[in-house]
Amino acid sequence: MKAPGSSALNIVRELFSAIEAKDLDAAMSLMADDVSYENMPMKPITGKPTILRVLRGFLEPAQEVEWQIVSECEHGDTVYNERLDRFNIGGTWLELPISGVFRIRNGAIVLWHDYFDMSTYTEQLRKITSGSSAKS
Amino acid sequence: MKAPGSSALNIVRELFSAIEAKDLDAAMSLMADDVSYENMPMKPITGKPTILRVLRGFLEPAQEVEWQIVSECEHGDTVYNERLDRFNIGGTWLELPISGVFRIRNGAIVLWHDYFDMSTYTEQLRKITSGSSAKS
Repeated sequence: MKAPGSSALNIVRELFSAIEAKDLDAAMSLMADDVSYENMPMKPITGKPTILRVLRGFLEPAQEVEWQIVSECEHGDTVYNERLDRFNIGGTWLELPISGVFRIRNGAIVLWHDYFDMSTYTEQLRKITSGSSAKS
Repeated sequence: MKAPGSSALNIVRELFSAIEAKDLDAAMSLMADDVSYENMPMKPITGKPTILRVLRGFLEPAQEVEWQIVSECEHGDTVYNERLDRFNIGGTWLELPISGVFRIRNGAIVLWHDYFDMSTYTEQLRKITSGSSAKS
């Protein structure tokens, strides 16, 4: 899946297609072995096995995943995007405004920074989870 | 201060120079009358008087302000930057990783989105504030 000839922008778009398809093998194949995945409210995560586990944690509870790109910008080996990451969890959409910065080296992602408000994520998740427990 | 001939990137850089100088008149003069200032964890703020009040609230407690641009990207009328916003409050630096998206029209900022984790800001502010109360 690595595409050394692809533009940085295309590699990031491929990542998002893989994420939306919940195809984590495809997503991981776009990353370099020494990739650093940094959700800015959390500590940086390095090493593909750990990253895989964290991504699975985000995606697994969702029946549908849409990471809508609001706008994007490519500057050399770096890609910026502004997004609305959406997760359909048990029929309710969790929506997270987010901004990402990606650095590409030799056709693979080496750095992934996501900027977002953690409470915006956890508060919605808490409501959805407590709602579905109440229903069950 | 408006510079219709300036690039979008230069206008954003001018904004940051004004912010670091705590020169809010200069900062506001770079914005259009219908500017929308959106700290993503909060509701959008419109209208220059309200924006001025919010910016003053961020800047006033700080003896020094440094908004360090880590990287930036310009795409037509839109500017993306990745930053570390630093505030020296009573000798302690509050540091906030942040990502901004700015849209420019006719040489003025019409949209300003800042993505960050609110707790990262409030927790540091709380520690600094409680520390200085303890000292007084």
